[in-house]
Parts: sequence; structure tokens; C-alpha cells
Amino acid sequence: KSDKVAHFQQDVWSIFTPLAAQLNAINLGQGFMNFPPEEFIKEAARNAISIDECHQYSHPKGRLHTRQALAKTYGPLFNRTLDPESEIITTAGANEGLYSIFAGFINEGNEVILIEPFFDQYISNITMNGGVPVYVPLKPYGDASKIMSSRDWKLDINELRSKVTPKTKLIVFNTPHNPVGKVFSKEEMEEIAQVAREFNLLLVSDEVYDRLYYKPDVHERIANLPGMWERTITVGSGGKTFGTTGWRVGWLIGHKELIATALAAHTRVVFCVNSPLQEALAVSLECAETNDYYENNIAKYEAKREKLCTALSDAGLPYTIPQGSYFILANSAKIQVPEDYEFPEIIKKRPRDFKVCYWMAKEIGVVAIPPSEFYCEENRYLAKDYVRFAFCKTDETLDAAAKALLKLR
Amino acid sequence: KSDKVAHFQQDVWSIFTPLAAQLNAINLGQGFMNFPPEEFIKEAARNAISIDECHQYSHPKGRLHTRQALAKTYGPLFNRTLDPESEIITTAGANEGLYSIFAGFINEGNEVILIEPFFDQYISNITMNGGVPVYVPLKPYGDASKIMSSRDWKLDINELRSKVTPKTKLIVFNTPHNPVGKVFSKEEMEEIAQVAREFNLLLVSDEVYDRLYYKPDVHERIANLPGMWERTITVGSGGKTFGTTGWRVGWLIGHKELIATALAAHTRVVFCVNSPLQEALAVSLECAETNDYYENNIAKYEAKREKLCTALSDAGLPYTIPQGSYFILANSAKIQVPEDYEFPEIIKKRPRDFKVCYWMAKEIGVVAIPPSEFYCEENRYLAKDYVRFAFCKTDETLDAAAKALLKLR
Ligand SMILES: CSCCC(=O)C(=O)O
Ligand SMILES: CSCCC(=O)C(=O)O
Repeated sequence: KSDKVAHFQQDVWSIFTPLAAQLNAINLGQGFMNFPPEEFIKEAARNAISIDECHQYSHPKGRLHTRQALAKTYGPLFNRTLDPESEIITTAGANEGLYSIFAGFINEGNEVILIEPFFDQYISNITMNGGVPVYVPLKPYGDASKIMSSRDWKLDINELRSKVTPKTKLIVFNTPHNPVGKVFSKEEMEEIAQVAREFNLLLVSDEVYDRLYYKPDVHERIANLPGMWERTITVGSGGKTFGTTGWRVGWLIGHKELIATALAAHTRVVFCVNSPLQEALAVSLECAETNDYYENNIAKYEAKREKLCTALSDAGLPYTIPQGSYFILANSAKIQVPEDYEFPEIIKKRPRDFKVCYWMAKEIGVVAIPPSEFYCEENRYLAKDYVRFAFCKTDETLDAAAKALLKLR
Repeated sequence: KSDKVAHFQQDVWSIFTPLAAQLNAINLGQGFMNFPPEEFIKEAARNAISIDECHQYSHPKGRLHTRQALAKTYGPLFNRTLDPESEIITTAGANEGLYSIFAGFINEGNEVILIEPFFDQYISNITMNGGVPVYVPLKPYGDASKIMSSRDWKLDINELRSKVTPKTKLIVFNTPHNPVGKVFSKEEMEEIAQVAREFNLLLVSDEVYDRLYYKPDVHERIANLPGMWERTITVGSGGKTFGTTGWRVGWLIGHKELIATALAAHTRVVFCVNSPLQEALAVSLECAETNDYYENNIAKYEAKREKLCTALSDAGLPYTIPQGSYFILANSAKIQVPEDYEFPEIIKKRPRDFKVCYWMAKEIGVVAIPPSEFYCEENRYLAKDYVRFAFCKTDETLDAAAKALLKLR
């Protein structure tokens, strides 16, 4: 094994998703939908299969139709006319988009500032490309034994500023935030933007949950702040947007120089994205507004958020109400795992939250994700009393989870 | 831009495919089909859209169904029972599979031996991961002004052996070979295997054209030679196999330790492959034998090879008859490009074969690929009198090309 991958432990997704299946447990772990996408979305995919050209390579930048649809949808949101030839590419999921950005920009030893907790794949994506992650905490301010809002999780901007060194190359920003569910306000973004401008840093804005925010919050775009367009790449996800995480179609939007650099890596890493689902994404984007898809989807997810919040309250677990995304961080301090409980090897050597999640899967029948994966080695202890639940699940699943979680009372 | 990507020139695919479209020229360049896949293959894709689960993430290893279908198809070909849990993963095209192998195995400064000419993406995939490509020539023995066979292109095994150093990590092998079309014989493979065993090297066997070989040749598998299973990863491609280059579903097969290492990288680079087309691949594999798909496909491509060979003969261009793949290397020495011909910037600074291909696209109306991209910097001159044609095109397209190429007489 190369040094790049030798230190990787098994990823949390391939531990807990198979475990849920094996135990036939209620799976509120990995963020995927256990319900089908809307009919117009499936229809778009089915129709793509009938287009001969969709069975062949697309341009490495992506299908022109898809880039045009993205330009049309996102232009107004970025307050500009987006050029599908130079300011947008599709990627093999947002994940590969992130990977290719890091491959394109990072040199050995460059530092990348992450807001902690963070989506776990950032770390491997950065270190595989020679980057050094540097962490700034998003900290909960308040009584963790009570219900909080993701608004109460805050970034100390002076702490962020203090982490910048001559080696700092870029900042990874994420809103709505996984796993906290925080939707950053324009004022909070402006502070971060200020640091990026001051030190001439690039910024990757992971906005894969940009269609999932709940009233009264709105999704602001950091690329729209003064002086930010030329230093920001925004990452989007067809999977999160249309409930199709298995399509593996994401996109990058930004200044053409930045996109050209990410493209240089993307073209080599995967060459191009699968064509049928790129086409399906184009048509889904075109149909979304007329179907009031985005508003309806938000309403649907808001009701699901409500359901899971109520379930956690009923179970006596305090939690953070997310302003966006489909995740809820719950406080698991009160969950006692028996001292002599038997854990498999892969769980035994991990922090307490893994044990809580494993025990909960087996004994309560509900799977959640241990968020210590979203902290760096030294800070994993901060997650020991948290577990992350996903509510992108059917109402039946959420109701069943609510019932099962009552056993924790 | 990072050092990893800063030196990349624009890739040949995104120059010549758009050029063909723009000029409305006959495109025998990039290796994709301009005809639809068989009905049973499209049907498999269409049906996948109706399976709810196919819209969500698969396991990073790939859909179980797909791994099982691959195990069933390839087990007999590797003379063993393949374990779908540990010896097979799906990848986002063979390209990402290759990338993830290099990411998984290569440390900064490790040397990777390539047989030159080589598929261009190998180089970026290796160097982006800190590897150093080392070249061994596949040389034509014979009169280049006459028709040759890809059998006449040979590797000097002592030259290969002489390239091994303490830094050598792996050998990349490719049969049927792109762009030469050579199908290596078992004896030739045994020589290479001998070197791999002697120096304890890993071997990547790129066999994406394993279903495309022409009588009397057969496709042997280097992993089946003594002592090779434990050191070989074989790379396969759904796109080449089923005429669906846009699906982006490839696979890796090999010893479980090797697969685990590639998986560690793959999981981080793309997380998983798109689910609908993984499912479609599984069903296509299951239906292929009963439909006599492989034999029929070979017969179809054999006729196309014949057509293009005849066209080249008629045009007075000598060439190498390929034993496999859908490419033909033609000798373009006799093609005179006017001294004062006007080339765009991206062509101007490239070697003669780029100029021949550009001129041919404009003046003859046929697009081919300049094979200097398949040689390292120092050896690009070897390709100056070659162009590569693809015959994975409709008979109408091949006939039209034949007619247009007569202008070269
Ligand atoms: C790489 S799978 C992760 C899915 C997801 O976004 C999450 O659950 O956080
Ligand atoms: C990366 S696109 C290349 C397609 C192909 O395999 C070829 O034409 O050689």
C-alpha cells in the first residue's frame, strides 16, 4: 500500500450501511433516501436511455445539455450569466469534484483549512493529494443537555484567522453543514470571505445541500460576496438535489480559471461522468421549477425533520435542530453501553460513539453514524457523546425509528 | 495549479472529438461507438431505472449483483471461483480503476514500467500519484511502408528487464493493445511474467478490449500464469464490452489483498460507481452468453476491421492489421501537409502527427488520433508518421471514410 492510503481505517459508511442491512435495523445512518425519486426524475433517466449518444463518452467537461441546464438554473442564483463552456463542469459525484479540486490545486505540504466537524472524505481527498488539513472548530455554545439550534454552533473568526500560515492554500467551507445542519448567515460568510481575501486564499464551498434549508433560513452563496467569485469554487450534487445519490453526478461552478484547473485533474481521474444520468440531471433541472420541486421538497423534508426531532425528544435525547441538510446531531451522553458488551474488532478500537452506534444498532434496532469520523484524530473525543441521524427516509421508517428509540427512555 | 497538473497539455480527446463535431467530419478518432448498444443492453439500463435502490449509493465495492455477475462471467476465464466480496470491485470506468490502483500502490518516486506506445491517461494517472513512468518500446519489425501485422510489433524482454531498478513498483501491461492492436501470445506474456516474478513486481493488466480479438488469436490472461494471480490486477470495462463507453462502469479483478488496496483509494476518490448502470452491466453480463453476444460482436467488429483495412489499402496508406481492439495504426508518411498551412495554437506546437490529423480533418474530412500522445516526450518523434483510426463506427461511417480517404491517393 502507498503511504497515501496505508493509514486509512475502514470508512464509516461501509461499516454501518452493511451492518444495518445485516441486522435488518432501521437505517438512519448514511445519508441516502430509502424512497424513490419523483416520477419526473425517473422519467428523465428512462428517457435518457433512448438517446443513442447518451451511451457514449461525454466531453470531459460534461454533456453540453447538462452544463447549459446548470447555467440556466444557477446563473440567477449567482447573479450572473454563467458560461457553460468555461464556468461549469460535471463531476462523478460531488466527491470526485472535491477530489479533483484538491488534485488540481494542492502541492505537497500546502495547508487546507477545514471547519471541524467536517464531511470525512475531505481528509482523504486532501491528504492523498499531499495537502495538510488544519482545523478550526465549529463549537456549540449552550447547554448540550438541552435542545439547541445549529445557529448555536459558531466559528470563532479570530481562530480561523490565526490558522492561516504562508502555507495555507485554501479554505473548505460547507453550508448547509454536514453533520451540524448549520446554515451560515451572510454575516458569518462575510467574516470568512474577509479572511480569504485578506490572505489571498482559494475557497471551496461545498453546497451539496443547497436545496435543503428550512424557514426562516435561506441559502446564501459565499461566491456572491464581494471579491469572492474569482477565488471560489462551488460544489453541487445532483444526488442530494433530486434524491438520487446513486447517480454520481455532481458539478463545479466558478471562475473559469479555477474550473480549468479542476478540469485538468478531473479529465485524468475519471475522464468524464456517465452520460445517461448527466442527461437525466439536465432534464430534471429543466423540469424542477415548473413542478415546484424545490419548495415541495423542502416542505417534505421539513416535515421529516419535525418527525425526527419529536422522536428524539420523546426518547429523551437532546439534539441540535438543523437549519438545513437532512442530518440531526443528537447528544448520546445518557446512553450507557454495558462495560462488558461484545464488539467486533473494527468497533473495539474506535471511540465511544462507535460503540454507542453499534450497541444501538444491535439493541435498539436503529442505525446512526458516529461523528468522531468528522473530527481529526486529536479531537475525536469531542464527538464521544454525539451520534448523527439522517432523516432522508420514509415517514414509515421515521415512525418505526421513533418507536424503537423510546426504548432509550 | 498544482505541480501535479500544471504541465498537462490539453488532452487529445478534447481536441479532436469537438473538432470532428465542429467540422462535421467523419469521426474515426476517439474510440466510442456511433451506433446504439444492442436492445438487450438498453433494456437492462431502462429496467434498472425502475429499481428504487438503483437510485442510491452502492457499496463502495460495487453493487453486489454486479460483483456476482462479474464473478460468474470471469471466474471460468480466470480458472477459479472468484469471491465477489473480496476479489472484485467496480470502478467509475476503467480509467478511475487505473487511477485508484496507482493511488493505492505508488509512493513518491516509485517507478512504473510502461510499454510504449501506451494509452495516454496512464501517464497522468501515474504522475499525479507521484510515480515515475519508465518506458519499454513495443517496436515494429518490418517494412513500415508495407502492410504489417500487430504480431510484428515486439517487446525486447531484455530491454524490459534492464529497466527494472530497486525503485520499480509495477509494470503496466495491456492486451489487446491500444493503439497497436497487438494481442500478446502466451509465450510473450510468460516472458513478462518472468520479470515480474523475478523482481517481485506488481502487474496491472489493462484488458479493456478482452472481448475484441480476431481469429486466429485468443485472449490469454496474464493473471493465469504461474505465480501471477497474487501480483496482478486485471482491469475491465463495461463500456468496451457492451458498446457503452458513456456508462462509466469498469472493474478490477485480482487477489483480495491487491483489490483491498485499490478499494482503499477508490472509496475516497469517487466513493462508489453509479448504481443504475452497474445494475445494467450485471444484467447485460447475465444475458450476454445466451445471446451469443461476444461471438456476434467479434464477428461484427471483424467485418468492420476488414472494411477499414480495405479503405486504407485503397487510399494507399500502409497500416498494421490489429489482432484485437478497434484501432488501426496507419502509416501517414506519404501525407504531405502544405508548409504554409494554418494551424490553431493548440496544434501548432505539437508534433507532425497532430498536423497531419488536423489537416486531414479539414481537407479530407476524416478525423484520426495523433499517436504521439501515446509516446513519452522524448519519443514522440517515433509517431510522426502514424495516425490512429478507430473502426467502432457504423458501416455507413466506415464507407464514407473509405470514400473520403481516396482523396489521399
Ligand atoms: C460518502 S457517503 C456519505 C453520504 C453522506 O453524505 C452522509 O451520510 O454524510
Ligand atoms: C479517454 S477517451 C479514450 C477512448 C479510448 O479508449 C481511445 O480512443 O483510445
